[in-house]
Amino acid sequence: MGSAFRWPLRVYYEDTDAGGIVFYANYLKFFERARTEWLRAAGVGQQQLSSETSCMFVVKSASIDYHAPARLDDRLEISVRIQKLGRASVLFTQEAWRMNDLDPVRLCTGSIRVGCVDTNSLRPAEIPVAVFKKISNANASMLAAGI
Amino acid sequence: MGSAFRWPLRVYYEDTDAGGIVFYANYLKFFERARTEWLRAAGVGQQQLSSETSCMFVVKSASIDYHAPARLDDRLEISVRIQKLGRASVLFTQEAWRMNDLDPVRLCTGSIRVGCVDTNSLRPAEIPVAVFKKISNANASMLAAGI
Amino acid sequence: MGSAFRWPLRVYYEDTDAGGIVFYANYLKFFERARTEWLRAAGVGQQQLSSETSCMFVVKSASIDYHAPARLDDRLEISVRIQKLGRASVLFTQEAWRMNDLDPVRLCTGSIRVGCVDTNSLRPAEIPVAVFKKISNANASMLAAGI
Amino acid sequence: MGSAFRWPLRVYYEDTDAGGIVFYANYLKFFERARTEWLRAAGVGQQQLSSETSCMFVVKSASIDYHAPARLDDRLEISVRIQKLGRASVLFTQEAWRMNDLDPVRLCTGSIRVGCVDTNSLRPAEIPVAVFKKISNANASMLAAGI
Repeated sequence: MGSAFRWPLRVYYEDTDAGGIVFYANYLKFFERARTEWLRAAGVGQQQLSSETSCMFVVKSASIDYHAPARLDDRLEISVRIQKLGRASVLFTQEAWRMNDLDPVRLCTGSIRVGCVDTNSLRPAEIPVAVFKKISNANASMLAAGI
Repeated sequence: MGSAFRWPLRVYYEDTDAGGIVFYANYLKFFERARTEWLRAAGVGQQQLSSETSCMFVVKSASIDYHAPARLDDRLEISVRIQKLGRASVLFTQEAWRMNDLDPVRLCTGSIRVGCVDTNSLRPAEIPVAVFKKISNANASMLAAGI
Repeated sequence: MGSAFRWPLRVYYEDTDAGGIVFYANYLKFFERARTEWLRAAGVGQQQLSSETSCMFVVKSASIDYHAPARLDDRLEISVRIQKLGRASVLFTQEAWRMNDLDPVRLCTGSIRVGCVDTNSLRPAEIPVAVFKKISNANASMLAAGI
Repeated sequence: MGSAFRWPLRVYYEDTDAGGIVFYANYLKFFERARTEWLRAAGVGQQQLSSETSCMFVVKSASIDYHAPARLDDRLEISVRIQKLGRASVLFTQEAWRMNDLDPVRLCTGSIRVGCVDTNSLRPAEIPVAVFKKISNANASMLAAGI
């Protein structure tokens, strides 16, 4: 699984479909939860972000490869790693792992580009300096710690 | 199925769960879609409502009895009927029917109370007069037409 | 908030809607997560249940009153209490609380009746004895502990 | 918008998030609905597929670029085009368009690879011949018609 921020979660009925497995779109929900918690750990709350500044983060592109399915009651961990940090966008690499057994199984791998936009116009905007610093510091700490 | 506004829809993978049937919370989505289309048919768009007035509709209570399950690919119809129209809230009776065969099957029955609230404070508010009239007229027409 | 099993969760973007608050159907997801964890704590896994026995739990009715809205990033706790335990169904009382501040705020109250059904026919079935005992014991312990 | 199978839909509250726009994962739901309807038009029902054969379709990879956001009440059209038809998988190109005004706006573009798997083992499997022929014929007709 390598080193990265990891967020644990469970698979509930709401996440599965009639194929008996997690519906493919729901991994994007899982990825978003983990990014949100990564940001929160870095000191950035998104509700606060949109209420205190005039900007918010939106996803600009997402690419995901599905390797193995998850089922009801599975314990998952979602990883978050920054691939590239720009002034107006962040490129994340994320993975979902099934943690039921001693040997974790990688379920899917994603590449998600998140951009900062003006809340009203939804036009691209620079990440506010204070927020950028928090993200940059958290990323540096993670790299330094070998996370 | 009786007389009421009816909105057709299909069951997709996203609506089902690992039990092979539609996840129970999703009927509330279906009900909301049908109420939205009922309102639209009455001349009330909700995006317009919240942008042009300072209010929006929120659900105050929901009660639902599940009689039979729906499965992937089922054709459903969702009914909408006004049980009671107040100055600040509307009580809807709604049903979901499976329409695959000659004999429709009633899947669930709900009672949904929707209230008008101020968009910012989320406090109860009177339904704007123009909107109230549209709802009232649409309801009267439906009753007159035996719908 | 009284005494009951409580399950914590966060509000993410996926849970909210354009009204800026948690979409009303999603509380039924939250309730289901908490019931699932309550069952798991009682020793009953639902994936295991449907694979090892010929039955599963489905919701027969749900009734919910919305008192106050939740927003992005809110910390919630979902309570689970057994109102009535029958041989083929369980009646749960559940609540959602906002836990951001010193004074928790009750957001909604629900009454959910869950029935045991045969996995294939979806007809009502008695709860398997071993499962019934686990639920019964967990409920008794909770009551004894004043939970 | 070019030539392709197109499936219309509306944006409801359930599709939006607190940013006031459609949640990014939900476009994968929209894409799946449109692929399902494309298959149905080709004579392939997925409930029937999994009950009459031992296989079903699952998504192997998804890649999506978001160009512009959709909002509550927007009228969308989702396009479906086969990029490559293999014996065990199909590569689709899909787009979401906002159709509110005279000039449609392209909201996002996706590339979705769907694979056939055995329902029980979830291992890759060849698309059943009868199903493959229907897909192949539908695709040929679409190309011939300049769709």
